[in-house]
Amino acid sequence: MSRTTLQQIALSLDISVTTVSKALRSYPDVSKKTIEKVKAAAELLNYKPNTFAVNLRTQESKTIGLVIPEIVHQFFSSVVKGVIEEAEKNGYTVIVLQSSQNTEIEKKRIEFLINKQVDGILIALADDTVEYYHLFEAQAIDLPIVMFDKIGKTVPCSKVIIDDLRAGYEATKHLIDCGCTKIAHFRGPLTSQNSIDRYHGYKKALEEYNLEFDESNVYHCKEMSFEIGKENARKLLNHRNGVDGIFVNTDMIAVGAITELKEHGINIPEDIRIIGFGNWFLSSVITPSLSTVEQPSYTMGKIAFNTLFSELNKHKENQHVEHETIILPTEIIARESTLA
Amino acid sequence: MSRTTLQQIALSLDISVTTVSKALRSYPDVSKKTIEKVKAAAELLNYKPNTFAVNLRTQESKTIGLVIPEIVHQFFSSVVKGVIEEAEKNGYTVIVLQSSQNTEIEKKRIEFLINKQVDGILIALADDTVEYYHLFEAQAIDLPIVMFDKIGKTVPCSKVIIDDLRAGYEATKHLIDCGCTKIAHFRGPLTSQNSIDRYHGYKKALEEYNLEFDESNVYHCKEMSFEIGKENARKLLNHRNGVDGIFVNTDMIAVGAITELKEHGINIPEDIRIIGFGNWFLSSVITPSLSTVEQPSYTMGKIAFNTLFSELNKHKENQHVEHETIILPTEIIARESTLA
Repeated sequence: MSRTTLQQIALSLDISVTTVSKALRSYPDVSKKTIEKVKAAAELLNYKPNTFAVNLRTQESKTIGLVIPEIVHQFFSSVVKGVIEEAEKNGYTVIVLQSSQNTEIEKKRIEFLINKQVDGILIALADDTVEYYHLFEAQAIDLPIVMFDKIGKTVPCSKVIIDDLRAGYEATKHLIDCGCTKIAHFRGPLTSQNSIDRYHGYKKALEEYNLEFDESNVYHCKEMSFEIGKENARKLLNHRNGVDGIFVNTDMIAVGAITELKEHGINIPEDIRIIGFGNWFLSSVITPSLSTVEQPSYTMGKIAFNTLFSELNKHKENQHVEHETIILPTEIIARESTLA
Repeated sequence: MSRTTLQQIALSLDISVTTVSKALRSYPDVSKKTIEKVKAAAELLNYKPNTFAVNLRTQESKTIGLVIPEIVHQFFSSVVKGVIEEAEKNGYTVIVLQSSQNTEIEKKRIEFLINKQVDGILIALADDTVEYYHLFEAQAIDLPIVMFDKIGKTVPCSKVIIDDLRAGYEATKHLIDCGCTKIAHFRGPLTSQNSIDRYHGYKKALEEYNLEFDESNVYHCKEMSFEIGKENARKLLNHRNGVDGIFVNTDMIAVGAITELKEHGINIPEDIRIIGFGNWFLSSVITPSLSTVEQPSYTMGKIAFNTLFSELNKHKENQHVEHETIILPTEIIARESTLA
């Protein structure tokens, strides 16, 4: 006798879970008819949002949950710092949990946070998360969620992101501006939306500047490690294909690639120019120093918290919450690895 | 009408809080007489350990708390990874909190974890924590604590550490083995026990090898940053004093120092040899690569969790818990910055 879920209501009416979730909360962008249908179905199926959690939520806990794919990752640990600093200023404690890039663990984390009576949740999704029922269940008990960096576009909540397509485009354009004509791309995981968008940015730049796109110059990095960078650099050297520039997603992989290329006597930037992504600290201290895309992690953490904080306050005062998508600027940091 | 604390009982009997805490739990290393006195005083003063928390603790929460000075620090984030991996294998969730190197925040974190019904706590202390009442309060409700890396020697609990004095000694000896005769030391915060012990190791090595100890060759780093490394390297260059080797605590500071020295035309290792501490990833990829002391962070996290886990199990079975201090080995990693 398991609990009726939003998903079952959605299936019974052949509509999306998002719509069900919104309808139960009488969102203005759902038709009155749908709202009525959904509420009737919910009653019929004896749907109860996690009642235990609802009861607990009568009191503020002054605690928020922060779910990230991994803590040992300069980008996310820097987001964590931004969130914690801002939360502390406002009297909140942050429970930091990692999903280990795994949807099933991510679901457990959300459930855990609901049971721990947090006031709201900040989340960057695991790369393999493509369904959002666990988030809808939290929203069904009016638990505000703000997503950042790795988001689900269809989840009705506020989001803090960068424009990954544009950033990928700018990185590739920087190589073109420096004189590269045959540009390879080390791309990230196939299911990661950021990686997909950056890859599209790369393709777009090639197209705009009439450079040939050759699928065999795209190397796949299934994880963000130094070793993967070395491995793909070795593959590239075997294949070579006249490549004179590489846009590498992200810096850690780029540092691996530079190390491997140097070991094979390739001069950077003379033979091959390289640009990374993320502006990790180590990029500024290696030789040659690595050109990269500055991605505002610390600021993203601060803004994500403040967005959630403002929603929490509106909730308390029963004000309507307007979801917003905040796009933070990125910037090309030109260093030795792309010197013209 | 505030709650009677362990500290008040200790004051009233003119004995230590540690003894009070142990006596209330009838520790075998406290005399029967003291136990009786303490229990009588506790009754007289109407002492109640955090009763709310005691009541909550009748059930396992399968959650542990992990308190560290800062998350954005390669050493600690790697400890976090070790703890989380091991905890997950055993069905535990980890609440990660940071004390921001501040005792007052650390106290709030412990209180928060008690109220969140965790089963146990892993902690690396803030550098300025010199009193442990907040930990004794947790122990008074039989909440097991395991300390790691930054510990309070007088807290009766299990500890997982390295031998900092020996590691500092070995690092300095490595410079001596490479031919250095005038060795400077960039030391960490004055209140950090690790830094103090590493400094003593440095002094001990100089003494054993009959090298002069000169206080003016000891530079103080109040925080672990790249900038502090640059700043102290500038000071050293002004002072110089014939220094031909530097033992730098820790790697991030060493990387700052190397960067600054290179900018002033100093050749490393020819003019000055440098050894860091921690074996951070970036040390292996900079030029020249940095010799350092490998400190087992990931392993420390795993062992800290397993020590706590074993204590939790003994608690459940009402078995006596024997506290242990586990000392993990360190290792000199010789790279280009100390080539003989």
